[in-house]
Amino acid sequence: MTDGIRVVVVGAGFSGLAAALALTRAGAQVRVLEARDRVGGRVLTRWLPELTQVDLGAQWIGPTQDRMYALVAEHGLATFASAAVGAPTLLWAGRRRAEPPADVARVLSLLDEYAARLDPAAPWRAPEAAQWDRTILGGWLRSTAGDGDTADYLGRLLAGGLLATGADELSLLHLLFYLCSAGGTAPLLGMAGGAQQDRIVGGPPALAERMAGALPPGTLTLAAPVRSIEQSADGVTAWTDTGRVDGDALVVALAPALAGRIRYAPPLPALRDGLTQRMPMGSALKVHAVYPEPFWRADGLSGVSTSSAGPLTETVDNSTPTSPLGVLTGFSYSSEAATLRGMSPAQRRRCLLEGFAAVVGPRAGDPMDLVEYDWSSEEWTRGCFSGAPTPGTWIAYGPHLRSPVGRVHWAGTETATHWAGYLEGAVRAGERAAAEVLAG
Amino acid sequence: MTDGIRVVVVGAGFSGLAAALALTRAGAQVRVLEARDRVGGRVLTRWLPELTQVDLGAQWIGPTQDRMYALVAEHGLATFASAAVGAPTLLWAGRRRAEPPADVARVLSLLDEYAARLDPAAPWRAPEAAQWDRTILGGWLRSTAGDGDTADYLGRLLAGGLLATGADELSLLHLLFYLCSAGGTAPLLGMAGGAQQDRIVGGPPALAERMAGALPPGTLTLAAPVRSIEQSADGVTAWTDTGRVDGDALVVALAPALAGRIRYAPPLPALRDGLTQRMPMGSALKVHAVYPEPFWRADGLSGVSTSSAGPLTETVDNSTPTSPLGVLTGFSYSSEAATLRGMSPAQRRRCLLEGFAAVVGPRAGDPMDLVEYDWSSEEWTRGCFSGAPTPGTWIAYGPHLRSPVGRVHWAGTETATHWAGYLEGAVRAGERAAAEVLAG
Repeated sequence: MTDGIRVVVVGAGFSGLAAALALTRAGAQVRVLEARDRVGGRVLTRWLPELTQVDLGAQWIGPTQDRMYALVAEHGLATFASAAVGAPTLLWAGRRRAEPPADVARVLSLLDEYAARLDPAAPWRAPEAAQWDRTILGGWLRSTAGDGDTADYLGRLLAGGLLATGADELSLLHLLFYLCSAGGTAPLLGMAGGAQQDRIVGGPPALAERMAGALPPGTLTLAAPVRSIEQSADGVTAWTDTGRVDGDALVVALAPALAGRIRYAPPLPALRDGLTQRMPMGSALKVHAVYPEPFWRADGLSGVSTSSAGPLTETVDNSTPTSPLGVLTGFSYSSEAATLRGMSPAQRRRCLLEGFAAVVGPRAGDPMDLVEYDWSSEEWTRGCFSGAPTPGTWIAYGPHLRSPVGRVHWAGTETATHWAGYLEGAVRAGERAAAEVLAG
Repeated sequence: MTDGIRVVVVGAGFSGLAAALALTRAGAQVRVLEARDRVGGRVLTRWLPELTQVDLGAQWIGPTQDRMYALVAEHGLATFASAAVGAPTLLWAGRRRAEPPADVARVLSLLDEYAARLDPAAPWRAPEAAQWDRTILGGWLRSTAGDGDTADYLGRLLAGGLLATGADELSLLHLLFYLCSAGGTAPLLGMAGGAQQDRIVGGPPALAERMAGALPPGTLTLAAPVRSIEQSADGVTAWTDTGRVDGDALVVALAPALAGRIRYAPPLPALRDGLTQRMPMGSALKVHAVYPEPFWRADGLSGVSTSSAGPLTETVDNSTPTSPLGVLTGFSYSSEAATLRGMSPAQRRRCLLEGFAAVVGPRAGDPMDLVEYDWSSEEWTRGCFSGAPTPGTWIAYGPHLRSPVGRVHWAGTETATHWAGYLEGAVRAGERAAAEVLAG
């Protein structure tokens, strides 16, 4: 009965592509409208000399992210293991430390215990949800961890490393939802065995392109930002700058902060619109220093680091097995990212290289290249990794995150209940929205 | 030297109109582009039988709001005193109570003391600012007030009554900024002697229309939503659906949540865009029950009430001296407003009338009319009274609230440092932006 149903998909990131593929396979007539001149959304791969693959956006997949591994295989691609040779570095209040205090594991385990009490499809229903949603993560950490450095370290690792935000901008409930959606702190924070285990040969954009290539000809239109969405009893229309596309249903496969920037006629219900006002995108700066070789390995270092202070919250060895070059990638979040953005390019370079040197030594100060790319300045993204509800928002607006509005359905990794915020969540959310449309 | 400078003003609310008037008087060539088919922004007056003026949006002005009184006089209008005959009603945990516990005054005075430490132009600079911005107002009230009812009451009065949000969605710092900007809790909460002292004969739209009428012919274009703003070294262009308007400078006189929905080329700097993602509009429902007469006065009641629980946080007698009809206006905020929005119209009516009856007795159950108007469903407003930064936002993004971006300047009541969130703040912000443009 779904044959011939016409569905418009807004956005050709992983969520929109997954929705379009699922709909196409079910016999629907699909049109995908993408604002950018490329597919993939929050992924981008730049090629440096020696065919070094530098993933500027989302880059990792790991165990239990089954849909992503299946897509990689289905589209004839392969994965490779993230580089992790040698010991990780822990910078604690500016000094090296062998391992984190036992208190770190205690607090993580408490968070896991709380997270397990949530239903990721309705975190607002947990008995403690209201209390957790008005608890600022940073304050909770300061009162729960044994000392300030541990609280700072955990805030940076969790609010920063997972959500690209500040511990003082986030509610405990949203962190717990995020942990619950991915299966806990260990799967999220781990390299091998965790969410950072594998990378895609050719980069995630290669997979997005193959997914797009598997759509029937004429399905996808690039450089076609949707400006408004009109719906009536008869159908739904997406308007671009050059014309209209009509459908029986429509899937908005964008982060809520972007979905809210489209014009809707009739306007969205107050609480759905309010939700889009209360899920800002994270604020991460991901920078890549390129060297002739991954010199830190000779010193027994993995290049993987975490720190309780300073502009760089974490670094990883982002070198690829097929290239001799060494790539060290650093992440900065929230107020530290803001400080970096406020510097002159020369100041920022100096500050970043000092950060890398603190991890792998002074040779880090002289890279072949320093690659910066700021998703927060990208019109069609406005931040990364994902959008996160501000404190109090889950309780007051959460039920409107996934509820369709008439013929309009909501995808995007923010709407996922398994691996929300990840490529896996994007794909699952797209496929869930497609199923919703097909179920009528 | 400002003669002939061309300025585009986006938005014909009080802020845009005030900017346009100031610029025109200084000799600038001004074009005002307004999305709606009317001027005034968050004000609207509906006329009921017997020429009863029902102000559906902003309606009050009070002492120290000097620019508003001056504008009223300058444009040949008059004010009248808000009705406040008889005693206010205090509903405390569902029961009437003669007056609030002394603890209420103690907490308000503590807030005033803190607020006085702020510079309203840079609240992020106060020594305690970072701590206050990560403190949720609701939690602070629960730990500061002597009991839960007092905390609830104050949260509703302050987060709700002043900012149309929930105490658990707001940081202590933003409340303190708001108090500071208006001169403290007494000016903000007061009827006579405070921000609710006077109303405008004919309603605020009458003043907005006269301000618009004082602009040179051809200045104002209605029904012209600005879709994008492009700037270069040579100038700035606002694009509407029907064409372009060029200028040397441009003033965006919109709330940040709306300003962020315009497309900018080049895109806004990351931190300015991030700010617009983190200042959602408040969520208020203002409803008006109309009766043949203000019957509550015969019972010695003023119709003015506040309550520590229930859907209505406050009510006022909104009758006008020139009409025999009685108008009782109630306000609901945040989660209570969300609950009301989720009801059927009949359910909501029943619930609202019960709320009014709790204040003035059972005669409230049978009004001639019940007037609802929800600004949160309005495309060109998306909520009221004003936009408020979410917890942590003042610290991380505050400095970008007023900083011009090239040729683009920011007005709107949210950018005011005196009476932010009020009509007075809108006018002052517009005039400040105009001065900024003229100063070159």
